[in-house]
This record gives sequence, C-alpha cells and structure tokens, in this order.
Amino acid sequence: MEGDSSLQLRVFDLNCWGIRYLSKRRQERVELIGDTLRQEDFDLVLLQEVWSEQDYHNLKGKLGGCYPFCHYFRSGVIGSGLCIFSRFPILDTLLYQYSLNGYPYMLQHGDWFCGKSVGLVIIKISGILFNVTVPLFPLSHQLHAEYCREKDAYLPHRLVQAWELAQFIRHTSKAADVVLLGGDLNMHPEDVGIQLLRGWTGLRDAFAEATHFEGCEDGCTLIPKNRFTDKSELLPFPMGIRIDYILYKAISSFTVKCKELKTTTGTAPGTDIPFSDHEAVMATLHIKRQGQAAGDTLGTAESVMADVVTEAQTEVGMGLRAAQRQRYSTGRMAVLALLLLLVQVTAALGTLVGLGTEQPFPKLSFSLLAFAAIGILLLATGLHLFHTTEVKMLQGTEEQMRMALRALQEHP
Amino acid sequence: MEGDSSLQLRVFDLNCWGIRYLSKRRQERVELIGDTLRQEDFDLVLLQEVWSEQDYHNLKGKLGGCYPFCHYFRSGVIGSGLCIFSRFPILDTLLYQYSLNGYPYMLQHGDWFCGKSVGLVIIKISGILFNVTVPLFPLSHQLHAEYCREKDAYLPHRLVQAWELAQFIRHTSKAADVVLLGGDLNMHPEDVGIQLLRGWTGLRDAFAEATHFEGCEDGCTLIPKNRFTDKSELLPFPMGIRIDYILYKAISSFTVKCKELKTTTGTAPGTDIPFSDHEAVMATLHIKRQGQAAGDTLGTAESVMADVVTEAQTEVGMGLRAAQRQRYSTGRMAVLALLLLLVQVTAALGTLVGLGTEQPFPKLSFSLLAFAAIGILLLATGLHLFHTTEVKMLQGTEEQMRMALRALQEHP
Repeated sequence: MEGDSSLQLRVFDLNCWGIRYLSKRRQERVELIGDTLRQEDFDLVLLQEVWSEQDYHNLKGKLGGCYPFCHYFRSGVIGSGLCIFSRFPILDTLLYQYSLNGYPYMLQHGDWFCGKSVGLVIIKISGILFNVTVPLFPLSHQLHAEYCREKDAYLPHRLVQAWELAQFIRHTSKAADVVLLGGDLNMHPEDVGIQLLRGWTGLRDAFAEATHFEGCEDGCTLIPKNRFTDKSELLPFPMGIRIDYILYKAISSFTVKCKELKTTTGTAPGTDIPFSDHEAVMATLHIKRQGQAAGDTLGTAESVMADVVTEAQTEVGMGLRAAQRQRYSTGRMAVLALLLLLVQVTAALGTLVGLGTEQPFPKLSFSLLAFAAIGILLLATGLHLFHTTEVKMLQGTEEQMRMALRALQEHP
Repeated sequence: MEGDSSLQLRVFDLNCWGIRYLSKRRQERVELIGDTLRQEDFDLVLLQEVWSEQDYHNLKGKLGGCYPFCHYFRSGVIGSGLCIFSRFPILDTLLYQYSLNGYPYMLQHGDWFCGKSVGLVIIKISGILFNVTVPLFPLSHQLHAEYCREKDAYLPHRLVQAWELAQFIRHTSKAADVVLLGGDLNMHPEDVGIQLLRGWTGLRDAFAEATHFEGCEDGCTLIPKNRFTDKSELLPFPMGIRIDYILYKAISSFTVKCKELKTTTGTAPGTDIPFSDHEAVMATLHIKRQGQAAGDTLGTAESVMADVVTEAQTEVGMGLRAAQRQRYSTGRMAVLALLLLLVQVTAALGTLVGLGTEQPFPKLSFSLLAFAAIGILLLATGLHLFHTTEVKMLQGTEEQMRMALRALQEHP
C-alpha cells in the first residue's frame, strides 16, 4: 500500500484446545485446522493452546508454502501454547510473563503450571508497522461463575493480568501504526477486565465494529452446540458466551475498519467436527492511510475510565487483603510445625543423653510425626513465600492503578 | 527546554547493598545516602538493592521535599530492590521479569529467590520524554571468575537476561526521546553480555563518552579500598572492577552528551564510611535538540554485532545442552524413586493380604525408606519441571538470536 490505497488484512484467531492426552481428537483437529488454513487465504493466523510443540511443527510443515513466516513462543513448563503464522515477514518478537497466574496448590485448575504469557510479534505489511499481540488468559475456571461472584477468588489475578496486558500493549506499541490483538481473553465483553483492557489501550472490538457479521448469535465463541464444550459450564448461558476476541486500533496516520467478522458455528466448514471447543474468529480489516497523524487516545471517556479503574482497584485491594491473610496463616502454620519439630528434637536428645530412662514414645509414631512436621514446615514455608510474592504483586498493581487514576483526574 | 536551548540532567546511581540483617551498618548507610541526596541537587536517583521496603519509606520521607516523585518496584518474595526518586513527575511505570534467574537449589547464591526484574519509568522533563530503565542483574557470584570461565554455569542465564533487557529496551523505547539506563549490570565492560546489551540497543557508555571524569581509576565501582567489598573476590583484579553503569542514547531529534562522570572512591564524600560495597556513579548529561530526527540505530557495526550475537548464541546453546542433560537426569531420578515406591507398595500389600506370612522388613526402616522415596520423587519432579522451563526459555532465546542474526546478515 502506497499513497492513499487501502490494505485488506484477513485475520484468523482460534483457541486450539491442544492438550496432549486430554483434548479429544486432537491430532485429527490439528490436521483439519492445517488443511483449512492452507485452503483459505488468511494473512495472519493467531493460535492459542497449541501446547504440543509437535503439533506446531506439523502445522509449520503443512503451512510453510502459504504462511512462510511463523513463531512459537516458548515459556513455562508446558510452553505458552501461543503461535503465529504469517504471510509477511516477522521482524521481531517479545514475550511478556504475567506476574500472577493462579495458585500452585489448585492442581485441579493447573493455571500456575501453564505458561502465563503474552506474545508480541512485529510485522511490516506494505510499509505499515503492525504490533500483533497474542495473549492467553489461562484463568479460565470459574469464569462462568458470575452468579456466585463472591466465590471468584481468581478475579484479582485476572485483573492484574488484564492490567499488565494493557500496560504491555501501551508501552510496546508507541512506534506501531496498527495494533492487533487476537486471542482467548476468557472474559465476557462486559467484564471489568475487558473494560479495563479496552479502555486503557484504546483497542476496539471487531465484533462491535464490524460492518457485516456472520456466525453464532451475539458473536459467541463458546457454544452449547459445539460437541466439545463442557455443557455444565454453559448452563447459565444457554446461548453461549463470547470470550475470544479480535481487537484493533490505529495509532499513527491510519484508520482501521472491520469490514467483516465471522465465527464458525459449532463445526469446521464442510465437516462435522469442530476445530476446537472454541469457535474460530475471522476478521477482514481495512487499513487506510489518512491525512494527519492521530494521537494515541484512551478507548473510553476519562470519567468512565476512572470508574472502571476504580472498580478494578477495589477488586485488587480485596485480593490483596485475602493474600495478606493467607500469608499470615501459612506463616503461622510454618512456625507451629517448626515448634513441633523442636519439641521432638529436644525429646530425642533427652532420651539420647539418658535424661529419661526409657524412650516414652513408640519409635514408629515418633518418626512419622517428625516426617509430618517436616512436610508441613516445607509446604507452609513454600506457600508463605508464594503468598508473599502475591501480596507484593497485588500491592504493585494497586499502586499503578492509583497512579493511573491520579493521571485521569488531573488531566480530564 | 524549548527551541534550541539545552537541558542539563544530573543522574545518581547506586547499588545500595541493603539486605536486612546481612548488610553491614545498613541503617546508618541508608541515612547517609538520604542526607547526601538531600544536599546534592540531582535530578534522577536510581537505586538498586533497597531490599527493605522500610528503607525505601525512610528515604521517601527524607527526600519528599527535593525529590517529590518516586517509585518502588515490587516483585518476587523479597522485592525487586529497585527504586527511583525524581524531581520531575513520573508518568508511567512498567516492570519486566526475566524468564531465567539462576537455580532454586543454589541456596547459597539465592538469586532465584530475588526479584529478577527490570523497572521502567517514563518521565517528561521540559517536553523531552525519558525512558529510564533500572535493571538489576542478580547473578553476581562467579562474576569475577573469568579465570575459570568453564565453571561459570550462570553465563547462559546472564546472557538470556542481557538479551531480554536489550529486547525490552528496544520494544518500549520507540516513542522516547532519550533512553537512560543506570544500574549494577554485574558484568565487566568487555563481557559479551555488555557488548550484546550495548550493541543491540545502541546505548552508549557514560564512562567511555565523558568529557571529564573524576573518581576511581578506570571507573571501577567495586574496589579493594572500599571497606565493605569482599577482598577475596577482588584478588584477580587488584585495581577493582567496573560493573555499575550509566548508559544513554537519544532516539529522536535530540543529542545526549556526558559532560562529567564521577564515582565515589571508597567512602561517601565528607565521611569515613562508604554508601555501600559498590561505589556510586554520578553523571551530568547535556541533552540538546538537533535539527532533524535521527533514526534508531544499532550501537555497533553490523558485522561486529553479528559476531557478538553469534558468541552469545553459542554460549546459550551450550547452556541449553547442559539444561537438557539435567532435565534428563532429574527425570530419570524421579522415575527410579517412583519404581522404588511401587515395589514398596507391592511388598506392603503382599504382607497385608497374607502372601508372605511375616513382614520381612523392620517397620521403621521400611517407612523411612518410603519417606525417602517420596522425598526424592517430589524433589526430582520439581527439578525436572524447573529444567524443562529452563530448556524452553533457552530454546526461545536461541531462536530469537538466530532471527536477529538473519536480520543482521540480510540487511548489512
């Protein structure tokens, strides 16, 4: 694109649900995704939850001809699961890790073990610099639990992640012409986390802006009709929920418009199985050069934005107090276990030097108790350190939000 | 500063060595640092290793009058130890965490438990946008061990950190007019990590550029004359070493010159005790608007830069292979412990259902062995997960460096 002509960009986004041994018909679905992408002429393909590097390499092999440029973000024990395929050269990449990501002892949720990252790739297309962000918000569980919100212990962590993602985008996109974000944000459109992210970055929602839409009602991307979705999770939402997004904004002398947005509707086109338990989101964007450079702006009126930041700050503050309580109780537990151990050591030494004529406890119970005390001491200490970190990160975010609020109020 | 007039900026940088209970005469030194900063008229004060938040609050209280703006970066169990005091409003902040930071089982080194972060603050002074980075490179030990380099198991981690710091600066500084970095980089000026950081970001070394220098010979910041330095560490370097830096570059239509650089010389001015075990670095910078905007450039000729990246990539590759070996051996250890446990469970069940007429082992030894097996299983699994993460991050960095090399070779 030179002069006044416009650029058309087709973006494909999908949470692939590619957990080895756990996701149903994974290899068949990855094959299907690869085949579809090879047939369709997308420009950018943003994939999440490609947890198996082998799946990525299979896709890379299959798509090499039509998407010669690709990147897989490595992080964490399992990997980030994030990857991108592009028709245009990838100039640079950066990985950012959230500071908080659930609790290590919530093994059944497993977030803490996943990569907790945002991937950024920089791509130049027809002279236009694109900052493309692929986030994954792993805190999925209890997402659908608005009806028992007081139980959503993860909300503060999710807000910290939304805030960090927004800050990361703001700080890295200063030289970009267009910012694109495509991914599973694991939040409803009206959630405070989404409002925070969109408001603080100025990103616009392709679904809300699209001239033409085709797909699931209300743009839902997790629907009961999809055979792989967990139906019990969707009980309070009979129509499904929208949690996968394509967001965008133009920063410098460009405008972006979403001409068309599509989602799959429970099955992959022309087949009877879905790509994933999520629906794919496909956007056709029109990027046009305009006369003068527009300054970077917030996405929401300052007064509304101040309300959103205030709400988020309140939630983070509540999370902070909960974390402080847990830090205290795990610390107390560690001290008690240490005291028990000391008592045992004293008793054992007493027996050894012959203060008591006989060992007063059966040896087996005595050593079992000692092992239990050591186990509790280690566990409680580990948790205490974890909650100490959690407190620090929540305090840091709360302070950043306070700084943002001050800026919003001072320069309305 | 408007029009063609120039701005003079005085920067103070110090690694404060503020470890509670461990650092000698900590409170006295923090008092001294506060008093000195209040008397001197610096514009920016960049401090590292302020591990105690109480010390930060004491400094904040003391310096509120002359440095009304400040920020403390919270992270990790202990904190990041990074803070900044400024005469000018801080507009925004961001914290970035390195993906690797030593080994959890190297308790005597302790890096893994420290915050492993880089702090960024954005400050506008007289209309000029400053991106100020305060890094801490915690991998300090074995730093002085160039004479037995093959033993420096931390070099790959340090190179990953140098690379991530460089990438972070590149990606966040696109809209800045001037980039400043002040901190303890824990590397000698000629180390490949410093060359990588400086070359890849284009940052210039205030010591090398200063018109006037006053302080320790060769700009050393860790000197035998300082009563708090560990003399045995400095044995191979009788003059001391230079590991604390002030680096800078102008990005847009500005030029930066270092008019004067000073270091303390073993004691704080006018006293007989030092500020810290490091010397303070103080720079006077002249920032001037020039006619036309200069493009962002590398700091080193492309061919030299390619050599530096190649060397770094080789070191990271060696670290990768070491990490892969450790991942394998810890995995094997976990499997062996699991097998032992299974044998024990089988034996115990056999006794229970009466297959053996008698318990063949003394109960105490049997349960002790079981506990040992559980302990080894947990430990080996934890280490296996850690080394898996390490492998992923080293692979990711190696790939990014390969991408950078390709770019350097394609566009010489």
